[in-house]
Amino acid sequence: MKLATFDVGGTVRVGLVSEDETTIQLIAATDMLDVITRWDALSGSLAAGGEGVPLSSVKLLAPIPHPRRNIICVGKNYRDHAKEFAQSGFEAGAVAGAEIDTHPAVFSKPASTVVGPDAVVETHPGVTDAIDYEVELALVIGRGGRGIKAADAFKHIFGYTIVNDVTARDIQKNHKQWFLGKSLDTFCPMGPWITTADAVDAENLDVKTWVNGELRQDANTRDLIFTIPSLIETISAGMTLEPGDIIATGTPSGVGIGFKPPRFLKAGDVVKLSISGIGELTNRFV
Amino acid sequence: MKLATFDVGGTVRVGLVSEDETTIQLIAATDMLDVITRWDALSGSLAAGGEGVPLSSVKLLAPIPHPRRNIICVGKNYRDHAKEFAQSGFEAGAVAGAEIDTHPAVFSKPASTVVGPDAVVETHPGVTDAIDYEVELALVIGRGGRGIKAADAFKHIFGYTIVNDVTARDIQKNHKQWFLGKSLDTFCPMGPWITTADAVDAENLDVKTWVNGELRQDANTRDLIFTIPSLIETISAGMTLEPGDIIATGTPSGVGIGFKPPRFLKAGDVVKLSISGIGELTNRFV
Repeated sequence: MKLATFDVGGTVRVGLVSEDETTIQLIAATDMLDVITRWDALSGSLAAGGEGVPLSSVKLLAPIPHPRRNIICVGKNYRDHAKEFAQSGFEAGAVAGAEIDTHPAVFSKPASTVVGPDAVVETHPGVTDAIDYEVELALVIGRGGRGIKAADAFKHIFGYTIVNDVTARDIQKNHKQWFLGKSLDTFCPMGPWITTADAVDAENLDVKTWVNGELRQDANTRDLIFTIPSLIETISAGMTLEPGDIIATGTPSGVGIGFKPPRFLKAGDVVKLSISGIGELTNRFV
Repeated sequence: MKLATFDVGGTVRVGLVSEDETTIQLIAATDMLDVITRWDALSGSLAAGGEGVPLSSVKLLAPIPHPRRNIICVGKNYRDHAKEFAQSGFEAGAVAGAEIDTHPAVFSKPASTVVGPDAVVETHPGVTDAIDYEVELALVIGRGGRGIKAADAFKHIFGYTIVNDVTARDIQKNHKQWFLGKSLDTFCPMGPWITTADAVDAENLDVKTWVNGELRQDANTRDLIFTIPSLIETISAGMTLEPGDIIATGTPSGVGIGFKPPRFLKAGDVVKLSISGIGELTNRFV
């Protein structure tokens, strides 16, 4: 099932998107977190179907527009991207021959970065002139927990969405820790909805990015260095995961700093992301 | 003024601590964030004074027990600590002769790390065996904003509190990005209250740590590499600061990894922090 948060006449609601993605059926819930926590009770009634309004008549928002805490992000989780990043000159402390980490790099982006499908992303002139895109499969946690073992990890995933982990490469490099360069306002487009975990094989999804119609990233989640179960085991070892937590799993090669010279985003650029089984997420930079 | 969040008979309230720190006067507010956002209207009535209950009759909590987003933390912001960290072997990518950063390292800790005065801190056996303390002056943002200039920074500070930026050094090193090693449950003792900005000169405060009664850290905030105004300018350049945001300004030398061999915390240890003009914060590790 595909679950979306949307604005209809100024009111924010949650709905079930039809299989053919033409209509959306209202769900009796306060927000997506409410849906996630009451899913066992809700899902049966939703499966029965109901009347929907045209999807084109509503404005989609990020599926979780205001996450309760920062989005958890993984860096350097595809081999070719780890190499292009190390060779770009934008990775502080990069060591030749040691591009692939032995433990995943984990950082966060605050909720204030989140914007929805078709929302604009600010280019922050005067603050950065090195903005880059990063398509990523994001996990949405359903059942929280600490010390989750890899073998149990998928039981804790409610569903999946797409995020663009937009990054100011100059700030990321200068400050060494990545938080600031990842946390500029509007730097986390998310959507178009959450595809529930039962509907996809998350370890075999095509992940793509187009910039102004040009294909830039083209990979598959089977190539993640640190797998989805291992990420959940590692992250939850000492930190309790909570329902609604979002974990972005890292981006493949083809980002702007993978080119020589780098191809940074500028005002007017349109970035379209797609992940098979989920959908598309398009945002314009202004 | 000193403003505390406390538990009285199972109810969480906010109060004004008396000058002599013996009584606490209830404030008519839902929580500390409510106090911060309505401060202009509230502060006048509080100054008039009122009846209080003995401070010893209530249980102090972290002044903001559940921050709305991750705590923003600054690393390596005292020269001697930057050197001890680089020389400890626990800083991934440390470069001899380049211990002092040109731009501040900024990372985050989730709200799930926050505990209050006298609360216990977990030692997470099996997850880490390299736990360290870090006393830090923390700023509490009153008026939010983006693009705040250093000259205006102090106008945006509501007050100050103490945090212990507890760190799993092994995880911090292995994962290079510091988020995971800083984010284990209970790893951010905070308190004992917020001292309002008018009551202290934040750039001249004594900052100390004792472990089991032994003085370990002993410094002054005048020695911050990146000053409080510059931190606010840097962090808010592209990210909107929000009322209630907490910015921990970094720790001085004397942490456990500053010793050879390192002196890590173990179950049973008691860590007491003090910052002049604010107070003391004591926590036991279990």
